[in-house]
Parts: sequence; C-alpha cells; structure tokens
Amino acid sequence: MKIAVADLQSLVEQVLARHGVASARAPLLAATIVAAERDGSRSHGLQRLAGYVSSLSSGWVDGAAEPVVHEAGPGLLKVDARNGFAQVALAEAAPRLRAMADRQGSAIMTTADGHHFAALWPDIEPLAVDGYIALTMVNTRASMVVWQGTHKVLGTNPMAFACPRRSRPPVVWDQASSVMSQGDVLLASAARRPLPEGVGVDGDGQATTDPDAVLRDGALVPFGGVKGGSLAFMIEVLATLGGARFGFEDRSATIPGAVTSNAGQFLLLIDPRRFGDSFLDRIEQLIEQLREAGTGRLPGDLRYERRRIAERDGLELSPEMHDYLLTASIASTRR
Amino acid sequence: MKIAVADLQSLVEQVLARHGVASARAPLLAATIVAAERDGSRSHGLQRLAGYVSSLSSGWVDGAAEPVVHEAGPGLLKVDARNGFAQVALAEAAPRLRAMADRQGSAIMTTADGHHFAALWPDIEPLAVDGYIALTMVNTRASMVVWQGTHKVLGTNPMAFACPRRSRPPVVWDQASSVMSQGDVLLASAARRPLPEGVGVDGDGQATTDPDAVLRDGALVPFGGVKGGSLAFMIEVLATLGGARFGFEDRSATIPGAVTSNAGQFLLLIDPRRFGDSFLDRIEQLIEQLREAGTGRLPGDLRYERRRIAERDGLELSPEMHDYLLTASIASTRR
Repeated sequence: MKIAVADLQSLVEQVLARHGVASARAPLLAATIVAAERDGSRSHGLQRLAGYVSSLSSGWVDGAAEPVVHEAGPGLLKVDARNGFAQVALAEAAPRLRAMADRQGSAIMTTADGHHFAALWPDIEPLAVDGYIALTMVNTRASMVVWQGTHKVLGTNPMAFACPRRSRPPVVWDQASSVMSQGDVLLASAARRPLPEGVGVDGDGQATTDPDAVLRDGALVPFGGVKGGSLAFMIEVLATLGGARFGFEDRSATIPGAVTSNAGQFLLLIDPRRFGDSFLDRIEQLIEQLREAGTGRLPGDLRYERRRIAERDGLELSPEMHDYLLTASIASTRR
Repeated sequence: MKIAVADLQSLVEQVLARHGVASARAPLLAATIVAAERDGSRSHGLQRLAGYVSSLSSGWVDGAAEPVVHEAGPGLLKVDARNGFAQVALAEAAPRLRAMADRQGSAIMTTADGHHFAALWPDIEPLAVDGYIALTMVNTRASMVVWQGTHKVLGTNPMAFACPRRSRPPVVWDQASSVMSQGDVLLASAARRPLPEGVGVDGDGQATTDPDAVLRDGALVPFGGVKGGSLAFMIEVLATLGGARFGFEDRSATIPGAVTSNAGQFLLLIDPRRFGDSFLDRIEQLIEQLREAGTGRLPGDLRYERRRIAERDGLELSPEMHDYLLTASIASTRR
C-alpha cells in the first residue's frame, strides 16, 4: 500500500509519543526516521522504529529527557543529552550553535549521554541549506575491529559532511567507518542474504560472510583497512570530548530490548561567508569539474530525487509495517 | 655511510638556503624533510629534496615569501602564504592560532597560495605534544579519480590527526585519501616495482599496476572507493576555504621543474582542557582497551621508535645522496 509522507510522519510520531517520547520532541525524532525512509536510506528508516520502541520500553533511553546546553567557551557548546536522544540535544543547541558560528566564524558542539540511532545527514543538511559547512561524527557501541585488533573496541562510528551550494540543495555525505553499516548488516540478516567478502569477522576474528555471525559475537571491518580504523579512532576521541561514553562502555548489549548506543556526538559548524563572497561560486566551479570528469550524482542527489518522488507519490508500505504502526501507535508496550 | 641527524639537518638547510629559501626559514623547512627521513617516512624524506630544489629553481615557489596572517573572525585565521611554503605560513600563524584556541576553546586556520610538499604529521605533532587536539588537511594537484569519474580532479588530499597523551608522545596519523600516496608511487617508479592491484588507473581510466602509467596521464584511486572520494571532496572544500586554488587549477604540471602544488591547508585546533580534567585519563582508558583487543603499535609509535634509533645511531645515507647534498649545498642551480 501507499502512504503519504505526512501521514507516515503522523503515525511514527504517535508511536514514539506512545512509548515515552515527550510529545514536543516526537515530531523531530519521527522526522529523522521518516526522512530516511522517504529518501531511500532504508537501513535507517522504519526498520529502526521497533528498536526505538524497545529501547524506550526497556527504560534504556529516556524519551522525556530535557537536554542541558552549556557554553564551554566562546566557540564551544557542551551538551548533556541526559540519556535522551541526540537529535533532541542538537535541536536544543542548534540556535546557539548557529549564533556562535555567526559570531565566531566557527563553532563546535559536543553531546554526551545521548542516543543517536538515526542517519547523520538529517542533522546537518538543514545547516548547509542555510549556508553553513557542517561536519559531524558519532561514536557507537563497540562493533568494529581496528589496527590489527581481534576484538571490537570502536563502533562503526559514522561521519557526515555537508557543503552548501548556490540555489541548490547541498552536497551531503554520510558514511560509516566500517565497510558496511550495522544497519545494512541487519537488513542482510533479516533477508537471510550473505554479506559481501571483506565486510566482517566472526567471534574468532576470522573473515565471514554470515551476517548473524557478525552480529552475534563477531565484528565489522573498517573501510580502507588501517585508514578507516584511524578515522574511527578520531571519531571516538572527538565524539566523546564532552564526556560521552566510549563505545566499549555502552551497556546496551546487556539490557533486553536496548539497541541504541549511549554515546557522544561532535559537530563542527563553519560560516564560509567569513572568507568572502566567492565561496559558493567556487563550489560550483569544483562541481562543474567533477561533472566533466564523469561524476553523475553527487552525494545527496539520490536522496533529493527519491524525496521528490515520495512527496509526490507517497511511500510504499508493507501491510506488516502498516499493522505494526497502527498497533504500536495505540498500544503502549512501556512497562 | 652514516650521518648524524643534526649534520643532515645542517646540510639540507644549506641546500634549501642556497636555492632561494630565506635563511631564517630554511631550518624549519629542512626539519620537516629530515624528520620524515629520520622517522622512516621515506616517501616524504630526502627523496623529495630534489623536487623542492627544482620547484624553487624554476621560480614556481617563492622561498623568500613572507606569509600574511589575517584574523577573519575570533576563531578563524586566514593565512596568505604568498606563493611560499605552507610550513612557513603555519609557523608564522601558530602562536596566534594557539592563543585563539586557548581563548576560544577551538580555532581554525586556512592557508591559501601555499606549497605543501611534506608529510602532514610534522605540522600537528608539536601541537599535540602541547596538549591540543589537531586535525589538518591539504589539497594537492589533481591526481585522483573519484565518484565514478574517469578523469582526475581532486588530489591525493591527505588528512592528519593528532591526539595528546599523558606523559607520552601523542597518537598521530597522517594518511592520503588515495589507497597509495603519490610519494609511494614515485618510490615504486624509481625502483621499477609494479604497484599493487587497485591502486591506480591509466590514461583511459583502466586499472593498471604500472607506476609510470599512473604518473604519466593516469590517476590514483581513493581508499574505500566512494567513501575515500567523499573524504577527498571534503578536504578539497575545507583546504581551499581561505581562497586557495583547487587541485585542478594548479599549473605545476605545465612548468618544467615545478613539482609542488600551489594549494591550500585547513587546520582545526581544539583545547580539550576546556572539557574538564579527565580527557587525558580517558584517552589512556581508550588506548588500554585497544591494546587488550590486540593493537600493538599506535599510529606514530613506529616513527617514535625509528626517531630514537636515528638520534642515537645516525641515519644511513647513500653515497649518491651524500654527493647530491654536498654539491647542491654549495652550487646554486637557481636561474
């Protein structure tokens, strides 16, 4: 069946609110889930909703947490998400972060004690739409082996970057430090599909293509070998700067129903207007060269295309997902 | 033959000064070359000296340029290297950059119209020794195909990150966005060694293991495929923020003797002390976990080991290199 994006948003809001997300925060959180589904980032879309619900129901994450924003320096915001969702913390901090970048030229936000279970691009796309350059990083529960290690310590630690364009949607990429994201491994497991070679290892540190072996006691592998591991280390350091837990300190694996990571986020905001008026023209020159060299879609373009189609035609929803949404939006499973 | 590190430093200083580097700047520039040789980063060591010399002799780079440092915001330094070396620009800006980070919590430097022909880690290791977290990026002349492109637009665009430790040398990594650095391709070419698979393409965009085909009209390939290309794009944007040339705008390939790129640098400095006293203890906890998971050397450790040995025993120097150093230190080839 087809469902209009706005109707899906409304249903997801109800599901989240019914399971403990403050009603004032449910639209924001629902929007990041629906945005991923709408734009074709399926691994971070509706597939994740049950994980939000079980994490809330288990008491692992506090859907009613009110984040506290502290100015740690003229260019630094230190945000305590108080065991709530990182997106709520960012929404609370964003006006001050933008004002800081306007005043200083750049600003940094760090979030601690937060749960980030969504794609990263929804956090920064709006900032780049408004003309800022944004770079963000999140650490996640230990799930990757790096630097000759045989046991997982770092998470799949994603990074996302957004660059504004003149009169066009920004270039936005969002990528895990692992070859494959945890979400795509979950999709492969659900579909009983083997993983490609070179994606994961089993509990003995041996290469495997079995998604369940990776999820059970194995680990993912960083992209680019040592280099991806180096990026994941940097992300672990920067995302925890504000006092967040390291991925290996996250306890979610020991709590039934808890699937989100209690960890940190780093966000660097730069106002390119500080460097003169030519920035946007220069970016177009760079993109023109990439086009001439054979690049078709830029990062983000496919999302914008799918978004346009979904806004016009609605989204395909399986009967099972529709049933789940209806049931979960009226019946609370909160203890 | 063996040569003491200090004697090598002195010889390289003389070579650079003899070829147009201001005598006050020659020690700094020589130090980055000697540091790479000393620490085993051979692709950025003495092998590059002839490139410095020919770039200076051709008039492509101005060894006597005096950089201009401009405060573009309370947290932003915009540096004009005035067609000189990027290391000189950084040295000129560093005291103000540190003071900014002390005052603001973080600071950003961008350099335009500069030539960076060295490893990146020497730029940031001293900052991390003094307790700062540092992230730096440099764009270089077009040499890599990205995002389904068949022609090169972006450079091998390296990135380096330094994280301070308590009472120990910092963790410092430095990596090109390409699978293999341009310097290592040059080494393979000089040694008439084929490249590994998956490193480069020829002029028709076809995979090749011939280093000369890559250097002639081919291109390198980003690490991690699309993901490494995304990093290279981000680096191109951030490194040129202060008005630097894009890699595809660099004209060095058309000027005999010119091998350095006239491009840009981005450097983000963060003072972790702003976030409380526990940062250094936390980093040790993270490293302890990585050690327990099987990681032996951390990025930078091998350099520190080789450095200790070189400082004690001196460096091995081929008779040809010794002759070159002696000749070039007394005879100018400057037009």
